[in-house]
Amino acid sequence: MKIPEILVIESVQKPGSLARILQVIADDGLVVEHLQSLRREQGKTVWEITLEMDEETDRSLFQKIDDLPNARFLGKSDRVFDRHLGGKIETKSRVRISSLQTLRDIYTPGVARVCLAIQKNPEKAWRYTNIHKTVAVVTNGTAVLGLGDIGPVAGMPVMEGKAALFAELAGLSAVPVLVDSKDPQKIIDTVAAIAPTFGAIQLEDIKAPECFEIEEQLKQKLDIPVLHDDQHGTAVVALAALTNAAKRIDKPLSGSVIGQIGLGAAGIGIVSLLKAQGSCEVLGTDLKADALKRLENLGGQAVAIEELMARADFVIATSGVKNLIKPEWVRAGQVVLALSNPDPEIEPTLALENGAAFAADGKSINNVLGFPGLFKGALAAKADSFTREMLLVAAHTLAGLAGPDDLVPDALNIKVHDKVAAAVAKLVRETRKRS
Amino acid sequence: MKIPEILVIESVQKPGSLARILQVIADDGLVVEHLQSLRREQGKTVWEITLEMDEETDRSLFQKIDDLPNARFLGKSDRVFDRHLGGKIETKSRVRISSLQTLRDIYTPGVARVCLAIQKNPEKAWRYTNIHKTVAVVTNGTAVLGLGDIGPVAGMPVMEGKAALFAELAGLSAVPVLVDSKDPQKIIDTVAAIAPTFGAIQLEDIKAPECFEIEEQLKQKLDIPVLHDDQHGTAVVALAALTNAAKRIDKPLSGSVIGQIGLGAAGIGIVSLLKAQGSCEVLGTDLKADALKRLENLGGQAVAIEELMARADFVIATSGVKNLIKPEWVRAGQVVLALSNPDPEIEPTLALENGAAFAADGKSINNVLGFPGLFKGALAAKADSFTREMLLVAAHTLAGLAGPDDLVPDALNIKVHDKVAAAVAKLVRETRKRS
Repeated sequence: MKIPEILVIESVQKPGSLARILQVIADDGLVVEHLQSLRREQGKTVWEITLEMDEETDRSLFQKIDDLPNARFLGKSDRVFDRHLGGKIETKSRVRISSLQTLRDIYTPGVARVCLAIQKNPEKAWRYTNIHKTVAVVTNGTAVLGLGDIGPVAGMPVMEGKAALFAELAGLSAVPVLVDSKDPQKIIDTVAAIAPTFGAIQLEDIKAPECFEIEEQLKQKLDIPVLHDDQHGTAVVALAALTNAAKRIDKPLSGSVIGQIGLGAAGIGIVSLLKAQGSCEVLGTDLKADALKRLENLGGQAVAIEELMARADFVIATSGVKNLIKPEWVRAGQVVLALSNPDPEIEPTLALENGAAFAADGKSINNVLGFPGLFKGALAAKADSFTREMLLVAAHTLAGLAGPDDLVPDALNIKVHDKVAAAVAKLVRETRKRS
Repeated sequence: MKIPEILVIESVQKPGSLARILQVIADDGLVVEHLQSLRREQGKTVWEITLEMDEETDRSLFQKIDDLPNARFLGKSDRVFDRHLGGKIETKSRVRISSLQTLRDIYTPGVARVCLAIQKNPEKAWRYTNIHKTVAVVTNGTAVLGLGDIGPVAGMPVMEGKAALFAELAGLSAVPVLVDSKDPQKIIDTVAAIAPTFGAIQLEDIKAPECFEIEEQLKQKLDIPVLHDDQHGTAVVALAALTNAAKRIDKPLSGSVIGQIGLGAAGIGIVSLLKAQGSCEVLGTDLKADALKRLENLGGQAVAIEELMARADFVIATSGVKNLIKPEWVRAGQVVLALSNPDPEIEPTLALENGAAFAADGKSINNVLGFPGLFKGALAAKADSFTREMLLVAAHTLAGLAGPDDLVPDALNIKVHDKVAAAVAKLVRETRKRS
């Protein structure tokens, strides 16, 4: 799989120095992901160039750069590791404890009054503790990114990443919870036992099919929202992108045939949301029999990948398999969203060359767009679960916020998350009023 | 039990206005815990006066204040509740996620490199995640403060208080974990299952005797430090106070008879630490047979309370029973530390009147002095457990940091916690080197 490699290269400040370096990189078939100057001094500039390299890529490139007349390969940057140093999140006090009286208010003896008030009326915990903003980010590390079963501790950087994003984009307090078990029942029991700590629970990077049972059972057991992000968070963002892709080529989703390639967590989440939205035919394909069974239970139709490509107006792929979609399968006028990260099922440029009306990969369709607003809205309205309607309203809000040339809005724009949250919270409150 | 009540009172700015208010309070037998002016305007001052009132205390005081010529009772303040509003802690990102490149470094795709590095070498999780600073604060809410079994959610304000103190005093990230169970095995299994998330575990406000089994089993199962704070955190602070009390009356602990009244979590922790320190005779008393058994297993001698008071040179009481120690039991020259909060077993003034050489209650002997430094030190040195030696070094460090007129140092002085942490970490490193 592709992982970013960051090269630190010094060039002499002469016209063409940088161009030649980039040409050598291009000659190796590599794409520049990011480039920045670190410093300029004494007629030289030091650059940090981030490349997407396969793990198998030949590293002789470094020597070739070093051999250029006006360049020197200084080494690889630790920027990614540096940004992880010491961890990405921390618990902070919301109260400055600078005086004895503050201590006595927020700890013994003052805190006893708050404890007693909550004991008398448990609803008050929502007001006087941080539970109302706290999300457990639960994983057992069995399906981390495209890396597979790397275990819960190796999955921690992703969980801290989620928590950092919850904090930065939604002002929520997320708490990673690494569960050291692959037994669904044990995971369910463990999460249920500690559930009173949290206002909501995000299940994360737990492999299929266990993830389905774990989510289903926790939803039944608990009276707080539970969301398996790999299924539903991803589905929300995918549906937003699909909605805008349909608008772009002026073909309504309603009445169309939609093909879902890969019926793992993400694929099943997408099918489930498409069926909830209704009025389209959903085809699906996967190698696993239980995945196809799950598709059919949701009202989708299991077909071979070739048939799916031949019949679908819109194709969404979340298989995790690089280059799974053969260029010759692409139909003229088709929309192809090849969402697997970091390697899409087909490069968008290739799909377009083969007749696709529209094509995109998963790089811009980041699941960061979904979960912060979904949880913020659910918590703001004190929802007791995530419903399909909440997911749909989030997807439609996201779709509506995208610029005219984009499938989805900017994931780092806090207003986007605020608007998703507001739409979700409004729906929860209105639904509650009606019932 | 006593809970603070905060009165908001307006007085006319004339000599004696405030004095008269305080006299009315004094006439009701109440002690002023804190007093501050909220505002002064148009010849009037608004005061906030914090009183320690029993829940049964007659509230007619409010009327008596209102009846004073130059005062008006405006109501009760919500200061304590205000300080709890919205919760006392939050998860923050240590990284500002302001650019796409930062997002791609700390989340996908960059994070994959860190995950893979940890998978290859799990030790790296200590460096590249926040685990090295993260403490689980685990409770089932069965013995919260002096309030008893109020349940895990009503106990949350205490857990958030601990977490806020961990953050403010030791720079650690504590995470409350409310376990919804009274079954020791279930609590053990739950905590063990999520233990990879944390660098250390603090057990908190879990009632005796279950707390002993839970701590013992978790210590055996896990390779990270586990500490039941009500036992050992309290014991560390009590031993520091006792050490200084002994110095104050110039009588060494070594060779003395020490009596422990109340053999719950705190009492057993203190006995255990005294026996670890060695060379003193320890008497203990409790109503429960299993508590006495536990005392004897630690090498203490079970006696009736009257005998304990008659024989002990130093008396420590952690029974939770107000006024348990009858004044006539106090021996001339005795040291009496009546530590139950908020109501001591004997008021220090009363003990002194009855011949005690030295007496104190638990107000200044705050367990906040113990846990921040203990955990900071243990984590800094990556200890795999808390040993009695670590607790003793913390107690002796604390004792040495107290001012000449104090039993213990200022709990809000961050340097105190830093020094405890440094002493604990040094011991761990030295012990590791020797082994």
